[in-house]
Amino acid sequence: MKMTSAEKLAALRCLMAEQKIDIYIIPTADYHQSEYVGDYFKEREFLTGFTGSAGTAVVTALEARLWTDGRYFIQAEEQLKDSEFQLMKTGEPGVPSITEYVQETLPEHGIIGFDGRTASINTGKQFEEISCKKGGSIVYGYDLIDSVWTDRPALSKNPVFALDIRYTGEESASKLERVRTEMKNHDADALLITGLDDIGWLLNIRGQDVDYFPLLLSYAVIRESEVELYADRKKFSEEILDKFQKNNVSVKPYNDIYNRIKILDKGSTLMIDPQQVNYSLFRSIPADVTIVEAENPVILMKAVKNSTETENIRKAHIKDGVAHTRFMYWLKTNIGKLPMTEISVSEKLEEFRKEQSHYMWPSFDPISAYKEHAAIVHYSAVPESNAVLHPSGMFLTDTGGHYLEGSTDITRTVALGPVTQDEINHFTTVAVSMLRLADTKFLYGCTGMNLDCIAREPFWKLNLNYNHGTGHGVGYLGNIHEPPARFHWKYSPSNTQALEENMVITDEPGLYFAGSHGIRIENELLVRKGTENEYGRFMYFEMLTFVPIDLDLINPELMEPGDKRLLNEYHHAVYEKISPYLSAEEQKWLKYYTREI
Amino acid sequence: MKMTSAEKLAALRCLMAEQKIDIYIIPTADYHQSEYVGDYFKEREFLTGFTGSAGTAVVTALEARLWTDGRYFIQAEEQLKDSEFQLMKTGEPGVPSITEYVQETLPEHGIIGFDGRTASINTGKQFEEISCKKGGSIVYGYDLIDSVWTDRPALSKNPVFALDIRYTGEESASKLERVRTEMKNHDADALLITGLDDIGWLLNIRGQDVDYFPLLLSYAVIRESEVELYADRKKFSEEILDKFQKNNVSVKPYNDIYNRIKILDKGSTLMIDPQQVNYSLFRSIPADVTIVEAENPVILMKAVKNSTETENIRKAHIKDGVAHTRFMYWLKTNIGKLPMTEISVSEKLEEFRKEQSHYMWPSFDPISAYKEHAAIVHYSAVPESNAVLHPSGMFLTDTGGHYLEGSTDITRTVALGPVTQDEINHFTTVAVSMLRLADTKFLYGCTGMNLDCIAREPFWKLNLNYNHGTGHGVGYLGNIHEPPARFHWKYSPSNTQALEENMVITDEPGLYFAGSHGIRIENELLVRKGTENEYGRFMYFEMLTFVPIDLDLINPELMEPGDKRLLNEYHHAVYEKISPYLSAEEQKWLKYYTREI
Repeated sequence: MKMTSAEKLAALRCLMAEQKIDIYIIPTADYHQSEYVGDYFKEREFLTGFTGSAGTAVVTALEARLWTDGRYFIQAEEQLKDSEFQLMKTGEPGVPSITEYVQETLPEHGIIGFDGRTASINTGKQFEEISCKKGGSIVYGYDLIDSVWTDRPALSKNPVFALDIRYTGEESASKLERVRTEMKNHDADALLITGLDDIGWLLNIRGQDVDYFPLLLSYAVIRESEVELYADRKKFSEEILDKFQKNNVSVKPYNDIYNRIKILDKGSTLMIDPQQVNYSLFRSIPADVTIVEAENPVILMKAVKNSTETENIRKAHIKDGVAHTRFMYWLKTNIGKLPMTEISVSEKLEEFRKEQSHYMWPSFDPISAYKEHAAIVHYSAVPESNAVLHPSGMFLTDTGGHYLEGSTDITRTVALGPVTQDEINHFTTVAVSMLRLADTKFLYGCTGMNLDCIAREPFWKLNLNYNHGTGHGVGYLGNIHEPPARFHWKYSPSNTQALEENMVITDEPGLYFAGSHGIRIENELLVRKGTENEYGRFMYFEMLTFVPIDLDLINPELMEPGDKRLLNEYHHAVYEKISPYLSAEEQKWLKYYTREI
Repeated sequence: MKMTSAEKLAALRCLMAEQKIDIYIIPTADYHQSEYVGDYFKEREFLTGFTGSAGTAVVTALEARLWTDGRYFIQAEEQLKDSEFQLMKTGEPGVPSITEYVQETLPEHGIIGFDGRTASINTGKQFEEISCKKGGSIVYGYDLIDSVWTDRPALSKNPVFALDIRYTGEESASKLERVRTEMKNHDADALLITGLDDIGWLLNIRGQDVDYFPLLLSYAVIRESEVELYADRKKFSEEILDKFQKNNVSVKPYNDIYNRIKILDKGSTLMIDPQQVNYSLFRSIPADVTIVEAENPVILMKAVKNSTETENIRKAHIKDGVAHTRFMYWLKTNIGKLPMTEISVSEKLEEFRKEQSHYMWPSFDPISAYKEHAAIVHYSAVPESNAVLHPSGMFLTDTGGHYLEGSTDITRTVALGPVTQDEINHFTTVAVSMLRLADTKFLYGCTGMNLDCIAREPFWKLNLNYNHGTGHGVGYLGNIHEPPARFHWKYSPSNTQALEENMVITDEPGLYFAGSHGIRIENELLVRKGTENEYGRFMYFEMLTFVPIDLDLINPELMEPGDKRLLNEYHHAVYEKISPYLSAEEQKWLKYYTREI
């Protein structure tokens, strides 16, 4: 029999009382600060019933609250309505942040509890500080939900697979050598890596432990001549273990990492990335070990793709472009003739992708949004919301696939029939924005913070904007949002990374009108080196994505001649690259939908 | 009899030996880190013979070197050629920085000497660190050049003048109140201000102690209920002193500030801006005084102009626009008929300005550069270089004036006769860049770092660039380069200031081809608030400068329709605003030079 929300809370409060914990915090996180987490880690969802991908529950003896952001206000309200949980709308006026709430609510000498493995170092330190000011303390060694969650799913046991040199372009030994050079530059005896995509890249392996992303639950300790990999040994084939042996990689039980860190050599130096390592691991480091805090060197190495990877990525995008173009043809040809819903056409797009060689699975939770649903930036169609598509209005898909040749992320908005002039004009502005940013030339040293305004200016001129970044780095069978590349105009210390040659970044401006319509167009770009002269090194973007931009939604009168030229050049390239893989009928359609304007 | 360079160096080395100083450093600086310094402070020029506005001399028993930047390589080589000074080209490959040189050259247990009043806190600390590592020390209490410089000019004795409320728009008492609120926010008992323009703004006074800028040599200590102003009392009229008394402002001898700081109340808190206060003052602060380091609050207050100031600034720009337009008419009408040189036409422009009411004097060292001279970004015509103007090629002026209604800074490049197609195309790109940046709309929070690429992109598309910032804040009878507003794409911590309503900033892209031609077009912009909606507060720029952009140099074929519209709209406004003040003949000329393209 399923526990009710009230029963779960009662059980949790009982455990809190035993440990004398006044406030217990349950974030949405695994032990690796991953963007998507496996089922084992969905404690907040278990406790609250709210299924959104982001949110933090905070429980006291008297109160139960859930913080989430604007993407999920409606969904959370619906899902929390039969529970004691009160929705806290992050960022809304008058709504305290979690730390503000904890600060106000914690009694004198009170105790804050959380599972330190699911907290960042910063979060842990904040709770330390808050409790310290009240003469209290923190308790971070218990996972209280684990005791309440009787039917908790097991940790994933899915097998690991090796990624061939045809796809990685660099042997693990060579990557390890580069990392060890960085360790030497920091005089570090050991480097602790907890990022799942970083470990996968470094060892040229992938797993299936996290939703969508092909990642293995693991920690790694890199030393001068050996690597300790903390992961479930049963997931590895003999072949992979043999290969590991050659690189002196030994596999140890996943959870042993905490005890391993506690017995690090006295006087040795450990390098960690404070943005990645969890609080429990951080607090496990012995006092007599010197900590060097530095950005994990794998982050930048991984983001700068090698020539094998870029060649593969180009191929993956042709496959994905063929699948998506065929989907677009199918959609626009059959709308009003075949029954279609948001979910059914999303599955159809998945079918087109599956026809492509080396296709694995979707690279993230697909978005398939009709009319006003598209105005909800992170809309996810569920059976209750699943809209029927009709031959009118606009339809948006933001989807992607993992191929052995790399991962894709593409958004297209198409007309299914008659649309309003406003919709056409808005779409045209989004298209101009996307094309202008992709066409930017810049001096080496520029960051996404510098270039973002190229994409924003067409909107800002109209007193419009979109409340999300213009682009993010994309991993190669890793995380779909891969740091450090990004396009966002707001200054933050993490926003000062120069765009390096062979980084992959998305270009995805949009416009959203709640209750009416939403538009986003997303292409992926590859950062390339251009001319070098007395001014420095010029850089430019190579388009990776080749799928038509729906000409049914373009108002040429709003475009400068230069913008029209960009669109025509892009469509010319789409036809050149995609048409060879299409049927005669599809080709004819594509010819028309890539015509000069 | 004038001392020779060798005699000066010999005398300096003698004093260095007396003080056991191994390396003595002579920067180009007064005690206030001013951009331009008075004659009294030109020690580096006295010692080296190099007259450029930037440079640092470093002298050891065996060597004498001068560091300066790219603007001055040619001039410095020429002016140093008969001296022992070796030119060090800052930023060139293989050229050590001053600190690197000092580090390499300083012997074990060596002593570094400099006048601590002319050094920033950072510079002083760097020398401390270098000497410390060698087991040596620093000596910063002596101005050795003073003893060598027998005919040193006296400190300026020019009188102070008060700026009426008609021009300042805010009484000093009100400004002091705002500053004291900031002091309270920092729990500071006293605030030390050393920036000359900051003091002038705060007390609504101006001086004549620095080249070009109407500033008074002074320091100020602000306390809860009094202000101590350290300056030459003889410069003040009874009227000003009376006014001071009402605000509890007392005037103390200029150099007494150092002893004053040494006797600050034990246990009190002093607020200083570490970017402004000099090293000697910093080291004068007693150990039992708490130092609060924070940006001087006057910097931002002063940069955000009030409505009286913005109204005045608009008037100043009309006057300046009339003077400059009449000059442009005169120049283009009389070239080839009257004898003209760079210097003579610069004087002519000054005459046109002098005809305007409330004109004071040039707001900075004017640039008047014909043909290839314009490719030298900070060219200053001297009798030896003074080119004769002919009816061909391009001519650039970068000049400005102080009016009681505010200070101006404007650059125009004009054709004096036939020019090459390259010159026309380059000019067109510069004009497009200037116009596009001025037309930018942006969300509040944007910095000049975000928007700079709007101006750069037309150049970058052509693999071109200019090696200077695109714009700087402009003071109101203060410094012509006034922080914190600036347009520059490169990230630095000082580059993260949001553009605030009523900041004044220049928009001055350019192109420079050594030995051939140089182009710069500079308008001033006023930051304005636009629409506020669900996306935030939109901002825009109001043009302040109204002088034609030479249509003889415009190639309409290189312009998008939107660019042409911007140019036409601008020229329409120029005619509307300037023509009422012109003769019929000038009006006719202006009508033609502001025609639609």
